[in-house]
Amino acid sequence: MSESAQTIAETVEAIADGRLTARQWTEHCLDQIESHEAIGAWSFIDRERALERADAMDWLRKDGSAFGSLHGCPVGLKDIIEVKGMPHRCGSQLMGEVSESNAALVDALEAAGAVILGKTETTEFAAMHPARTKNPHSLEHSPGGSSAGSAAAVAAGEVPIAIGSQTNGSVIRPASYCGVYGMKPSAGIISRTGVFEQSPTLDQMGVFAASLADIATVVDVLSIHDSRDPHSIAAPRPACVDGFLSDPPIEPNFAIMTLPYSNLQSHACTEGFREVAEALEGRVEVLEAPPVFDQLIEAQRTIHLKEAAAAFETMGLYGNDQLSDTLKAMLADGKAYSEDQYQEALGIKQSLDEFFRNFFEDFDAILSPSAAGEAPLLSEGHTGSPIFCTVWTLAGLPTLNLPILQGENGLPIGLQMIGRYKDDARLLRTANWFMTHLFEEGED
Amino acid sequence: MSESAQTIAETVEAIADGRLTARQWTEHCLDQIESHEAIGAWSFIDRERALERADAMDWLRKDGSAFGSLHGCPVGLKDIIEVKGMPHRCGSQLMGEVSESNAALVDALEAAGAVILGKTETTEFAAMHPARTKNPHSLEHSPGGSSAGSAAAVAAGEVPIAIGSQTNGSVIRPASYCGVYGMKPSAGIISRTGVFEQSPTLDQMGVFAASLADIATVVDVLSIHDSRDPHSIAAPRPACVDGFLSDPPIEPNFAIMTLPYSNLQSHACTEGFREVAEALEGRVEVLEAPPVFDQLIEAQRTIHLKEAAAAFETMGLYGNDQLSDTLKAMLADGKAYSEDQYQEALGIKQSLDEFFRNFFEDFDAILSPSAAGEAPLLSEGHTGSPIFCTVWTLAGLPTLNLPILQGENGLPIGLQMIGRYKDDARLLRTANWFMTHLFEEGED
Repeated sequence: MSESAQTIAETVEAIADGRLTARQWTEHCLDQIESHEAIGAWSFIDRERALERADAMDWLRKDGSAFGSLHGCPVGLKDIIEVKGMPHRCGSQLMGEVSESNAALVDALEAAGAVILGKTETTEFAAMHPARTKNPHSLEHSPGGSSAGSAAAVAAGEVPIAIGSQTNGSVIRPASYCGVYGMKPSAGIISRTGVFEQSPTLDQMGVFAASLADIATVVDVLSIHDSRDPHSIAAPRPACVDGFLSDPPIEPNFAIMTLPYSNLQSHACTEGFREVAEALEGRVEVLEAPPVFDQLIEAQRTIHLKEAAAAFETMGLYGNDQLSDTLKAMLADGKAYSEDQYQEALGIKQSLDEFFRNFFEDFDAILSPSAAGEAPLLSEGHTGSPIFCTVWTLAGLPTLNLPILQGENGLPIGLQMIGRYKDDARLLRTANWFMTHLFEEGED
Repeated sequence: MSESAQTIAETVEAIADGRLTARQWTEHCLDQIESHEAIGAWSFIDRERALERADAMDWLRKDGSAFGSLHGCPVGLKDIIEVKGMPHRCGSQLMGEVSESNAALVDALEAAGAVILGKTETTEFAAMHPARTKNPHSLEHSPGGSSAGSAAAVAAGEVPIAIGSQTNGSVIRPASYCGVYGMKPSAGIISRTGVFEQSPTLDQMGVFAASLADIATVVDVLSIHDSRDPHSIAAPRPACVDGFLSDPPIEPNFAIMTLPYSNLQSHACTEGFREVAEALEGRVEVLEAPPVFDQLIEAQRTIHLKEAAAAFETMGLYGNDQLSDTLKAMLADGKAYSEDQYQEALGIKQSLDEFFRNFFEDFDAILSPSAAGEAPLLSEGHTGSPIFCTVWTLAGLPTLNLPILQGENGLPIGLQMIGRYKDDARLLRTANWFMTHLFEEGED
């Protein structure tokens, strides 16, 4: 639905050819943001800075200077990502100081020629307490969380790409609810230096865009090694654009795993998912998840909350009165986990590495809904359940939201596609094959 | 002379194809280093770590993982560049603590699959007091400075690439003396975070390699924006490999500038340079440098030494007894410059920006010798004069050493080619055209 007419690569080519300027692109986005104020996707915008930067990119073009793959492309950043000179709010009144330095990923975006427009709304400290953002498809519905503003901004066509993060389901779920493409690459691909830390073991960065091609473009830009982030992979990165553009040597194989929470799916979600599986005919296998999977939701929760409690203690904010009750309760739960429970959870997480290494010998990707169904109503007071993302985040696997299903109220539901660790390029190749296959079949 | 049979790209392709392993390449380099102990190019080598890293790169290949443009390629780093776990000696007994983090450029190398072998010798704190390194072409001669070990290691075939730095002439001069390709890209292309700071205004990183193609490969890898370095360019980087591989739209124009120090050239240097100019026939113009150029050597010296004195004061090492007399005198000279002199020098530097912006409207590159002549004898107790590099370093222009001339004793002299600021890709295109043109002409 929010599939853009043009990919970023095509728009950047138009700038290179002089058919469009970075200023025009940026002004268009700023106008879109202004006209969609009701959505409330942004926590901070620096209009002047963005236009200056766009002009600088246009000047570089006139000067015959080097051209980047995001040359002049406006970007929104979840407001837990530091940008020098912009307030760092993390969705909380407790924060808001102006940052003195850029997150590493901001440097990578700027080296590609991107124009940072500002910060997008996040739930309180990227946890569960909702942001003010509304779902662009229906202003009564939640955009999901925690990367609420990033998903909504892309869905509303306010910006071609936005950056978010996922500790549980904070990229894939809002992408699903808002009907945009989303990707959380393999853990360690995108640096987290300069990003608010909730769980060092689980925090992973992600990307929202209007097409798969754009996702590949942005992930390649962000794939920079940064040894300040202990998870950052000190080795060559998947070439996502190349992967996206290449044909699979043979038709890919898909797996569907029956998981303890599969029964939570809405009827429309189940039906849509079944239709997709049918369209894949003999290329998909349904498997019972191994017994260890029963423990994964709790293992993720243990690691996540225990580390979050520690992070807030380090910041001196544990138990602070100005935290929401939701967050206070979550942190108290985290603190209550014993060191033994935490270590056991880490052990369970580690056991997934070998399981999935073997698993992906036989399959190109796993299919799952991205969420149980449509976005919840804002009046429900929560951002929906991340449970359909938990296992893959825990395992650090690359995962995509493909916005192809629809719920009972006509709101989007995403199909989730999960790939082999560090094989993000293959996941994009498989997803591109899948989208082409599915929609060509449909058109017959 | 040390032109390698294969480019790095070709060797990396051999690894991709399984005709060579990263371990074999690394072992070959370690063996070369061992057999050339008399040259003394290295201050620290971690054999075990290098082999482990090479094995990891081989394992990634077997695993079908992503491949980098330096996959398995051994690298040496001037010992003013921090590598986590390696001693940081800066050519001085006053240093030597094991680094706790990587310089940003080390992360970039590792993201491309490089294998860090260790640290190469530098003059004391990258200043004038000689390193223990000898010139691989003649053990009685100096390899130049300050990036002595990096130049010598590449010249001796001990390592395909090495990284150095230049505040005055510390990449181009040793490359000239050692007969290897060298490049100091435009100021701001390669991050200096994690590199010993001598002059924040003038310090620039550089690269040594056995071919122009390899130079382009490595500079592209290192072209990462890093806002921790205030000079780092927050915009798209020149695509050096693309530049190197492309043909000039028309035959390039060259300039030779008559500079106040041109009379320092040795006879052989002058003769060789004249022959090159003749081979370019009508494509080269000799120009008198404008009057401001008379002040540039002193302006560079003022900025360099004033900032070096401040840097050593900050480190608490100013006047330290264990510094060489050369360095102590240099720092005292620096301290003696007044703030007015310093500001005036900065003003002169700044005036170069516009001059060269206009200049390169008419010319693709400037030609100059890289040094006055052959390497000095070690017994002379110095590393040669950087004066032929000073102006270009001061202006932050990209500059190359092409190892094509020869002196009276058969030792190498380099031809220097200087390009437009931030147009490093065009400089490589021009240099490649030049080398092809020159040596095809010669073969007629």
